[in-house]
Amino acid sequence: MPAVNTKVERLEQSVVTALGQLGVATVHEAQGRTGLLASHLRPIYAGARIGGSALTVSVPPGDNWMLHVAIEQLREGDVLVVAPTSPCTDGYFGDLLATSAVAHGCRGLIIDAGVRDVRDLREMQFPVWSRAISAQGAVKKTLGSVNQPVVCGNAWVRAGDIIVADDDGVCVVRREEASDVLAKAQAREAREAAVRERLARGELGLDVYDMRERLAREGLQYL
Amino acid sequence: MPAVNTKVERLEQSVVTALGQLGVATVHEAQGRTGLLASHLRPIYAGARIGGSALTVSVPPGDNWMLHVAIEQLREGDVLVVAPTSPCTDGYFGDLLATSAVAHGCRGLIIDAGVRDVRDLREMQFPVWSRAISAQGAVKKTLGSVNQPVVCGNAWVRAGDIIVADDDGVCVVRREEASDVLAKAQAREAREAAVRERLARGELGLDVYDMRERLAREGLQYL
Amino acid sequence: MPAVNTKVERLEQSVVTALGQLGVATVHEAQGRTGLLASHLRPIYAGARIGGSALTVSVPPGDNWMLHVAIEQLREGDVLVVAPTSPCTDGYFGDLLATSAVAHGCRGLIIDAGVRDVRDLREMQFPVWSRAISAQGAVKKTLGSVNQPVVCGNAWVRAGDIIVADDDGVCVVRREEASDVLAKAQAREAREAAVRERLARGELGLDVYDMRERLAREGLQYL
Amino acid sequence: MPAVNTKVERLEQSVVTALGQLGVATVHEAQGRTGLLASHLRPIYAGARIGGSALTVSVPPGDNWMLHVAIEQLREGDVLVVAPTSPCTDGYFGDLLATSAVAHGCRGLIIDAGVRDVRDLREMQFPVWSRAISAQGAVKKTLGSVNQPVVCGNAWVRAGDIIVADDDGVCVVRREEASDVLAKAQAREAREAAVRERLARGELGLDVYDMRERLAREGLQYL
Amino acid sequence: MPAVNTKVERLEQSVVTALGQLGVATVHEAQGRTGLLASHLRPIYAGARIGGSALTVSVPPGDNWMLHVAIEQLREGDVLVVAPTSPCTDGYFGDLLATSAVAHGCRGLIIDAGVRDVRDLREMQFPVWSRAISAQGAVKKTLGSVNQPVVCGNAWVRAGDIIVADDDGVCVVRREEASDVLAKAQAREAREAAVRERLARGELGLDVYDMRERLAREGLQYL
Amino acid sequence: MPAVNTKVERLEQSVVTALGQLGVATVHEAQGRTGLLASHLRPIYAGARIGGSALTVSVPPGDNWMLHVAIEQLREGDVLVVAPTSPCTDGYFGDLLATSAVAHGCRGLIIDAGVRDVRDLREMQFPVWSRAISAQGAVKKTLGSVNQPVVCGNAWVRAGDIIVADDDGVCVVRREEASDVLAKAQAREAREAAVRERLARGELGLDVYDMRERLAREGLQYL
Repeated sequence: MPAVNTKVERLEQSVVTALGQLGVATVHEAQGRTGLLASHLRPIYAGARIGGSALTVSVPPGDNWMLHVAIEQLREGDVLVVAPTSPCTDGYFGDLLATSAVAHGCRGLIIDAGVRDVRDLREMQFPVWSRAISAQGAVKKTLGSVNQPVVCGNAWVRAGDIIVADDDGVCVVRREEASDVLAKAQAREAREAAVRERLARGELGLDVYDMRERLAREGLQYL
Repeated sequence: MPAVNTKVERLEQSVVTALGQLGVATVHEAQGRTGLLASHLRPIYAGARIGGSALTVSVPPGDNWMLHVAIEQLREGDVLVVAPTSPCTDGYFGDLLATSAVAHGCRGLIIDAGVRDVRDLREMQFPVWSRAISAQGAVKKTLGSVNQPVVCGNAWVRAGDIIVADDDGVCVVRREEASDVLAKAQAREAREAAVRERLARGELGLDVYDMRERLAREGLQYL
Repeated sequence: MPAVNTKVERLEQSVVTALGQLGVATVHEAQGRTGLLASHLRPIYAGARIGGSALTVSVPPGDNWMLHVAIEQLREGDVLVVAPTSPCTDGYFGDLLATSAVAHGCRGLIIDAGVRDVRDLREMQFPVWSRAISAQGAVKKTLGSVNQPVVCGNAWVRAGDIIVADDDGVCVVRREEASDVLAKAQAREAREAAVRERLARGELGLDVYDMRERLAREGLQYL
Repeated sequence: MPAVNTKVERLEQSVVTALGQLGVATVHEAQGRTGLLASHLRPIYAGARIGGSALTVSVPPGDNWMLHVAIEQLREGDVLVVAPTSPCTDGYFGDLLATSAVAHGCRGLIIDAGVRDVRDLREMQFPVWSRAISAQGAVKKTLGSVNQPVVCGNAWVRAGDIIVADDDGVCVVRREEASDVLAKAQAREAREAAVRERLARGELGLDVYDMRERLAREGLQYL
Repeated sequence: MPAVNTKVERLEQSVVTALGQLGVATVHEAQGRTGLLASHLRPIYAGARIGGSALTVSVPPGDNWMLHVAIEQLREGDVLVVAPTSPCTDGYFGDLLATSAVAHGCRGLIIDAGVRDVRDLREMQFPVWSRAISAQGAVKKTLGSVNQPVVCGNAWVRAGDIIVADDDGVCVVRREEASDVLAKAQAREAREAAVRERLARGELGLDVYDMRERLAREGLQYL
Repeated sequence: MPAVNTKVERLEQSVVTALGQLGVATVHEAQGRTGLLASHLRPIYAGARIGGSALTVSVPPGDNWMLHVAIEQLREGDVLVVAPTSPCTDGYFGDLLATSAVAHGCRGLIIDAGVRDVRDLREMQFPVWSRAISAQGAVKKTLGSVNQPVVCGNAWVRAGDIIVADDDGVCVVRREEASDVLAKAQAREAREAAVRERLARGELGLDVYDMRERLAREGLQYL
């Protein structure tokens, strides 16, 4: 079972990058609200926004050995997605691993555990979404897997799936649905721009979305 | 039961605004420590400080339909206070609703659930105190209520009560006690200014507050 | 039992300050990963980095009387370490206590409970690591202890032990181990600088740390 | 503000007792799903089922003085409803207070904090719904209030409102709605008995509740 | 997307039942520690032990409509596995649904949300592993899916996979690995019986598992 | 640092056993409320009540190797006290370790992590107080320590200190204070018996404890 899948199909960068620019809320809506990771995964600093190809890593609690293995598998545009096999807040990742990851094209880290050296990571502008910040060190004793499917933040992520992350959190888009989701997300964004303008002028959502009749039918009363 | 109370008495702006400027810690003390909302309600960005008149909204879990209804009831200087009927972290509110709320005079949002588009909200400088940040979308299927009393963050809030919120959290002041609380808060602030100066010079709280005798009487020993 | 230990041995400032500059992750590694405080203790603003001598305070839930007693015991370079006797998130400490603490040489506060006036504390650049932010006020009714050992954030802290705190969290170094830990931390930092450079050039941790053989022996497979 | 309201109107016992026998899930539905207390309030032993008139107590964190005051206000059929003014898990209540409460007609305790002596309470068959079990003792230093409205478990409870509690949790019924809720709950129970029989025979809810057409209209597909 | 997969391959009962009797800890070890659901899923009463074929249901927060759809898909020996699309503790399931589920061959329920009527469920001996107990009712407004893969308790579960649950929690075994896991689990149980006997006689694990040399090599010191 | 302290002074059994019989709430009061472990440590079954001598074990997250080392150090009347070096809920301990521990005189287990095989442990009547129940297995790769001081459940525990545990939780009594605490606890119990009788007859705590005057002086008003 401890294995590294070295053959990951990655989507072309243009689609991945475009999804990243659209942001989590828009992409998550466009994909039918299916790929959101749990909201306990929070950015270690505000303002980062990324899209990338998932490089998945399954790690034992308190053991970051596989991260070194994973870095060798990185390709330009990848995002590390790290899931411990049981709940853990230890600091698996710090500025040395970040330095190495950046040197191999990594765009960021999603980890359902802890990170450390966050001041350095912020200065490097290496974006991380994590469950915790903790200086607790990890050992290098037990194997895990790389580029096998993992559950991270209560979501199923396969190597090569698309990760989108920003201040709202993290979502995953299936590789095979990415183009379709991108088209829908762009359409949604266009629609929203028009609505935003009307709302900014003071029109009410009740009218813009034509809700009054349905509200009355459901029995809403004005006292 | 699904109903909108359209007749909310609001206090004059001067009192509301003055309470907002005094801040949560001071107002909360002045009101006898009675109106603090739970500390899991945190600002989505640092530095905002508001006072406003509560417009209360009760919403089902994962359903933000009533927010559209609520926005029509907004008056200049209102703050939306949103409470789900069961624990929920979904993103009920984002940049479109914020755009609309601002167009109708809203000063901010207190929500015992999640919000999204927080980057946009920060850029708009629309302040939010929430339990979570989550891109999870909501449906528009089930009614709730507007301007009925709600429990938000373990505190009882009625429409028209005064909301004060800053980096320390959120508190609610009963409409009928607002003038009295304002006077006490201003008196407290004046007193504290004098104390601050003495403490800054190195005087000890033990002396400023005359505590030594009582400490000895209670049995404190110095070893 | 309610007692103030007035005779605390403090280490010379140079060692304490040097540990503070090395930061939590490095020091924690150098001490054999033994003194980390729980990761729920978070800084109220980013970027602070301190080292200081622990002045320990044990307080009842919701009662901050002993903080006034503690401030009299402060010496230049001390850090207040406050532990409630049962879980509590109340705001024990605000800008007045901070003003007083600063006047007596205090470098910061570690508290396994809540603080308030965080906007003022940030403006004063008075660093705090706390479990919560809450405006809830405390009473002054029940005694506790000062400079007796406490458990804070699941770690054992004695008066005069060294506290190191930064964006990664907080750790405690035994006074008698401080020089040794400092030497090890400095050595570690030197080693890491060399490694960082190699990793930045693209060398892999697998090679830098010579891991490939052991991975194979443990049974890692590349598919 | 520290005050005891000695004039509480209580509903006649027959209604209160009947509501208790119907149980939380049924009553909560009959009242339009409005009065449920938060699910962190759990029974200290399984199988208890009570209905009673709320005697509300607001207490400081870690201070149970007001419970002694409250016991004098108990009348036959009352249930103590205790809410701390800030989050606390201390053991406010044990076998001595329970002995005294029982002697004054108390049917049980709802407390958004901790209790202790739970083995004795179980042997006495004194039912408690609490947030925690903790032996941590409380002080008797600071006043609170008795029979003023409180927020307990995120619900608004007034003295004299009806408390219903069982293995499912706790709900509160407004005194003035109790008769109406009782009638609706009894009707609901009758309806459910009929449905239960049909379901037990293997009829499907899809047919019993006539859901198939609406499912199809909403777009459900069978693959 | 709202769809019901009606074609689920189920494993033969003998394997499923045998896995259930071996229990979670043994099966989880035999499968290489890969399928454990999160430990917040707890039994509503002690002593139940089941094995069954997963019938998966994805539900919106606070909406149990799809459970009625799911019950029609039940076959003898199935276990319902219910996952909300965002965190929710509402009571999705009670005695009526249990009555119906039992009539259609259901062996139990795994739900990453709340249940109610737990006293009735216990009396019916209908086993449930849930995140919460809550009387909060659900609506029937929004579709979800049945027998599509879900993430439940941070584990990936497909319809027809094997669910094993007991007092230790819940695990899932891939359908295609079930026979292999069963064989390994039975072998493990046999081995453990022999070890248990030696340990009961007072032999030390240090000797039974031959650990002394490796401990010494790793540097363990006896003082 | 990985070391086993083989020279632990244990108190005579009579004192330890007597403390165990008095129970946590009484002992905790008698010791001045200083040694309570955090309330998240809960018994895996109701009704157990133990006193014993602490055998402390510090373990890495997810690694139970040191438990085998610890069992060799057990003496009749010991209680295992296990603390992970970072937060962990894995199942460190099950029926095999329990069988071995019992064979070496162990009275129970306190663990700030998870256990498994709880059905077997209940049938063996081997009492455990733990943070979690989880079938997640542990590795045997990294050393820790035995009979060195640990922080467990936010309390400082030294080998040879006395552990008292029952349905209320767990407390630790310093070895050198045990006789004194025992005397105080017995005196307390005698006093409480007299008070209990008076309260059972209907006397009020207000009178038994002579509280009325102080309440009035503090300003309590009866409305």
